[in-house]
Amino acid sequence: EVAGRWVGGLARKVGGIAADDPRRVAHSLKVGLALTLVSVLYYVTPLFKGFGVSTLWAVLTVVVVMEYTVGGTLSKGLNRAFATLVAGFIAVGAHQVANRCGAQGEPILLAVFVFLLASAATFSRFIPEIKARYDYGVTIFILTFSLVAVSSYRVEELIQLAHQRFSTIVVGVATCLCTTIFVMPVWAGEDLHKLAAGNLDKLADFLEGMETECFGESATSESLEGKAFLQAYKSILNSKATEDSLCNFARWEPGHGKFSFKHPWSQYQKIGALSRQCASSMEAMASYVITLTKSQYPEANPELSFKVRTACSEMSSHSAQALRELSAALRTMTVPSTTSMSAAIKAAKTLRSELSEDKALLQVMHVAVTASLLSDLVT
Amino acid sequence: EVAGRWVGGLARKVGGIAADDPRRVAHSLKVGLALTLVSVLYYVTPLFKGFGVSTLWAVLTVVVVMEYTVGGTLSKGLNRAFATLVAGFIAVGAHQVANRCGAQGEPILLAVFVFLLASAATFSRFIPEIKARYDYGVTIFILTFSLVAVSSYRVEELIQLAHQRFSTIVVGVATCLCTTIFVMPVWAGEDLHKLAAGNLDKLADFLEGMETECFGESATSESLEGKAFLQAYKSILNSKATEDSLCNFARWEPGHGKFSFKHPWSQYQKIGALSRQCASSMEAMASYVITLTKSQYPEANPELSFKVRTACSEMSSHSAQALRELSAALRTMTVPSTTSMSAAIKAAKTLRSELSEDKALLQVMHVAVTASLLSDLVT
Repeated sequence: EVAGRWVGGLARKVGGIAADDPRRVAHSLKVGLALTLVSVLYYVTPLFKGFGVSTLWAVLTVVVVMEYTVGGTLSKGLNRAFATLVAGFIAVGAHQVANRCGAQGEPILLAVFVFLLASAATFSRFIPEIKARYDYGVTIFILTFSLVAVSSYRVEELIQLAHQRFSTIVVGVATCLCTTIFVMPVWAGEDLHKLAAGNLDKLADFLEGMETECFGESATSESLEGKAFLQAYKSILNSKATEDSLCNFARWEPGHGKFSFKHPWSQYQKIGALSRQCASSMEAMASYVITLTKSQYPEANPELSFKVRTACSEMSSHSAQALRELSAALRTMTVPSTTSMSAAIKAAKTLRSELSEDKALLQVMHVAVTASLLSDLVT
Repeated sequence: EVAGRWVGGLARKVGGIAADDPRRVAHSLKVGLALTLVSVLYYVTPLFKGFGVSTLWAVLTVVVVMEYTVGGTLSKGLNRAFATLVAGFIAVGAHQVANRCGAQGEPILLAVFVFLLASAATFSRFIPEIKARYDYGVTIFILTFSLVAVSSYRVEELIQLAHQRFSTIVVGVATCLCTTIFVMPVWAGEDLHKLAAGNLDKLADFLEGMETECFGESATSESLEGKAFLQAYKSILNSKATEDSLCNFARWEPGHGKFSFKHPWSQYQKIGALSRQCASSMEAMASYVITLTKSQYPEANPELSFKVRTACSEMSSHSAQALRELSAALRTMTVPSTTSMSAAIKAAKTLRSELSEDKALLQVMHVAVTASLLSDLVT
């Protein structure tokens, strides 16, 4: 019975993951398809004669190169093909040099070459630029160089072997690319685009929640802890890693849909950084608001407090609207109108001149200012 | 000349990376060493006879498994060895089944098996628990299963091949582990520990900076933009990804130094989350302070403003001291004293009763409260 419940729980979980994003199921089937296609190479005898045992390298390539997004697959595939080629040439050269040193010297010289190149290449992985874009390529470089250099000591027809291996890797990469690009492609660029717009919407959700629950007329003084809108910005705070990898993959992708090849992907990182800054302010504000509603201060100055409330409500709603417009503009890739933006800033300015000491206000204003910075970015 | 300058720049950069953390150089040399050790297997003829061409798999394993930290290498090595074993058994079983279906049925049945298992295994990588700890194992599972299943169609002595391959992988993993553990080991657990303590110190730096530059007696009213202390917390905000991966690796590590095998690593993630929350508040505060010093308000109420300043200064210094003590306690793994903590909270409380409306204050207090939460965590 315990096992039954466990299986039930697992099934629900798997179902949930699949329902969350049906592209995941498609991706799984695509990997299966690519592998089956490549293994056909091995089963069909005439093709097998041409490639030899090296066919297995095509299978290996498919398993390792196939990624969820088109950009990821392209990045890995090109890295792999290019690194194999370069490493193969260098290794054959090293073999020629070592070969002249006689039976005694050859293994020693080869070992020294492997040690030096592997150390240097490993160190190059610590350079941030290489780490970001060519990390996988360096690994494959070390791998291919070591394999070819080491096996050159015993294998006779080195050039032929290298040629076979390289062609099978190209076949593997080509299979992966065809499957990812032509069968229900998942574009990293599109995901990045949606992530940026979705984050702006989440910021707007928070401000709208603040307006209705906190500053609006129907706002109650009950504790706000646990309200959904206070969680809206949370996922933005930790979005940097996802964003960076999507942006990195998007750079490798060819033009697709409304995105051209040289789409300014790094702009999304700037928007993301501003969104996170906004979310940071919101976090501070949210915890302040929660502390405030918990401690239930008597209202010291009803008139002032009413004025601040109204102004805050106005700014929140204008800023939220501005953010919504921004996100819509981002989605349709048009230049956003600046009406709500300037309304929010104007409301903030009016109030600022009246009260130059109030903090909650200045914080909302800060959000408005950040939002205006955001609008500068969407060109 | 341009090339010369470029080389000079590169050399400086490489030197900087090496000087930043000399363990990086050690790691690079260790990779070279492990590879050379493994390639000796291939050069020495008696050993070569035992393993056959499969020796190349030992080289491949070393290149792919060797990671910067001990935990990373262990995690990858164990994943690889275990996944190879399981996949090998299943693949041999699949081969036995397919073998009974005759020359026509065998390749078709094998292709179907590969398709089904690869799809299912790929899908399992979307389950967060598997993604976090066994992602590499699943890749290797797919790889080994496909390779064995596909080559079983042509290779005669399948069992012997599988046995050879598995032993060479074990040799590769063992070489990696010996090199990482016995030659200048880099423990993920230790790095995680230092990261957590370092982050607390950075939070304290910020508060100390606030105290001297902003609230203290020698504070000038000049713009604070670009001051170093206002950047102190920035790196904390994006530390989540590093922290998660270190924590994941640390779990795999055996006991070392002052850490036992079952050290409560997840506590560091909690401290990290609180540090990030603190840093969020600081970000909001920093941008507020910058706006404030830029706009140069006339001081509306000198007496009040002096009072607030003194209180803020007191709270900042007490909180900073509390954070320093916390970080020292973390480093030495002792229970922190709560003297400074309670002094900071007391100062906050006294002022809170006097001024219940001021915001900058409440924010500093918020930091103090978060710090007190932090102290609860260090047990």
